[in-house]
Amino acid sequence: MRIKDDEKVNKIYRAAIKVVNRDGFEGSSMSKIATEAGVSPATIYLYFENKDDMIKKLFIHLKSRMGNSYYKDNSELTPSKGTYRTIWLNYYQFILENSEEFNFLENFTNCPLINRIENDYKLDYCSTIELFFEKSKSIGLIQNLSNDLLYSLLFSPVNYLLKKAIATNKPLETNELINVFESSWRAISK
Amino acid sequence: MRIKDDEKVNKIYRAAIKVVNRDGFEGSSMSKIATEAGVSPATIYLYFENKDDMIKKLFIHLKSRMGNSYYKDNSELTPSKGTYRTIWLNYYQFILENSEEFNFLENFTNCPLINRIENDYKLDYCSTIELFFEKSKSIGLIQNLSNDLLYSLLFSPVNYLLKKAIATNKPLETNELINVFESSWRAISK
Repeated sequence: MRIKDDEKVNKIYRAAIKVVNRDGFEGSSMSKIATEAGVSPATIYLYFENKDDMIKKLFIHLKSRMGNSYYKDNSELTPSKGTYRTIWLNYYQFILENSEEFNFLENFTNCPLINRIENDYKLDYCSTIELFFEKSKSIGLIQNLSNDLLYSLLFSPVNYLLKKAIATNKPLETNELINVFESSWRAISK
Repeated sequence: MRIKDDEKVNKIYRAAIKVVNRDGFEGSSMSKIATEAGVSPATIYLYFENKDDMIKKLFIHLKSRMGNSYYKDNSELTPSKGTYRTIWLNYYQFILENSEEFNFLENFTNCPLINRIENDYKLDYCSTIELFFEKSKSIGLIQNLSNDLLYSLLFSPVNYLLKKAIATNKPLETNELINVFESSWRAISK
C-alpha cells in the first residue's frame, strides 16, 4: 500500500473505532463510518470488502500494534523478572495512551467474529509474547502453564483496573501499579 | 413487590439482557424490550422510570445475585485457602450457568452509567466479599492489598478465560481450572 493509502486507511480505522464504541457493532454502518472519516462510502469499499472485513483488519492491526508495544522493537530481550516488568509497563503505557483502541478491543473479546479471527491469525500477532513465554518456561523462570493462562494472569488484572481507571478518569497510583505487577508476577513466576 | 410483580420484572430483565447483548445499549429501546418480554411498553413503565433506571436496577440485581452465588447463603465461612477455592468455584459455576448475564455485565464494565452506579451502590452488593477480604487480611492469610486489586487478581484471569470458553463453546478442562485457581491464589496469598 502507498503512503497516501496508509493515511487514508488509518483515518478510516480511527473513525470506525469511534463509531463502533459509540453505537456498537450492529449499530455501525459503513456509511456512518465514512461520514465520520470524511470520505465517501465508495472510498471505503476501495480498501474493504464489507464491514466484517474492515473490523477484522482493524482488529488485527490494533492487536499487532499492541503486540509491538510490549517490546518496543527489541525482540532479543532475555527472560527475567525485570524484562517482564518492562514489557508489562509498556503494555500499561500503551493502553493509557490508546484508551479508545483499548475499549474497542475489550468490547469485541466476546464476539464470535473476533473469535474466528483469533483462531486464524493468533500465531501472527501473538507470536512474540508466546515465544517469550516458551523461552521463560524452558529456563524455569515461570510456571509451566498454557500461554493463554499466562497471558491472562499477567494482563487481565491490570486490564480490569485500567477499564475502571479510564471510565472514571482516575489513573492508577504508582504504588497501586507496583502492587498489581508484583501480584501478577507472583501468579506466574516459579 | 408482590410475587406476580417479581415474575413480571424477571421476565423484563431477561428480555433486556437479550436485547442489549444483541443490539447494544444505544440500539436497545424500551419498546424493543417490551416486545421481547411479551408485555406492553406501558407495563414496563409501571416498574421502571426509563431505560437508564431499568439498566441500573438490572445491573444491581445481577451483581447481587452473583455476589450471593459466592457464598451460597453461608456468610459465616472461615477464611482459608479452601474457603477461597469454594467461593471461586461457586463463582465459576455461576458464570457457566448464566453466560448471558455474564456477557451483559462484561459489556457494561466500561460504561459511564455503570461506573456511577458502582460508586453509589458498591457497599451494598460487594459488602460480603469485601468483609471476607478484610477478615482474611487481618489474620495474615492474604496480601495487604486494596479490595479492588484483590478482586481483580482473584477473578479477572478466570473471567478472561471464561469469555473465550463461552464464545468458542469450549469449557475449561478440570486441569486448567485447577491451574487458574492455584495461580490466582499465589497472586493474593501471603
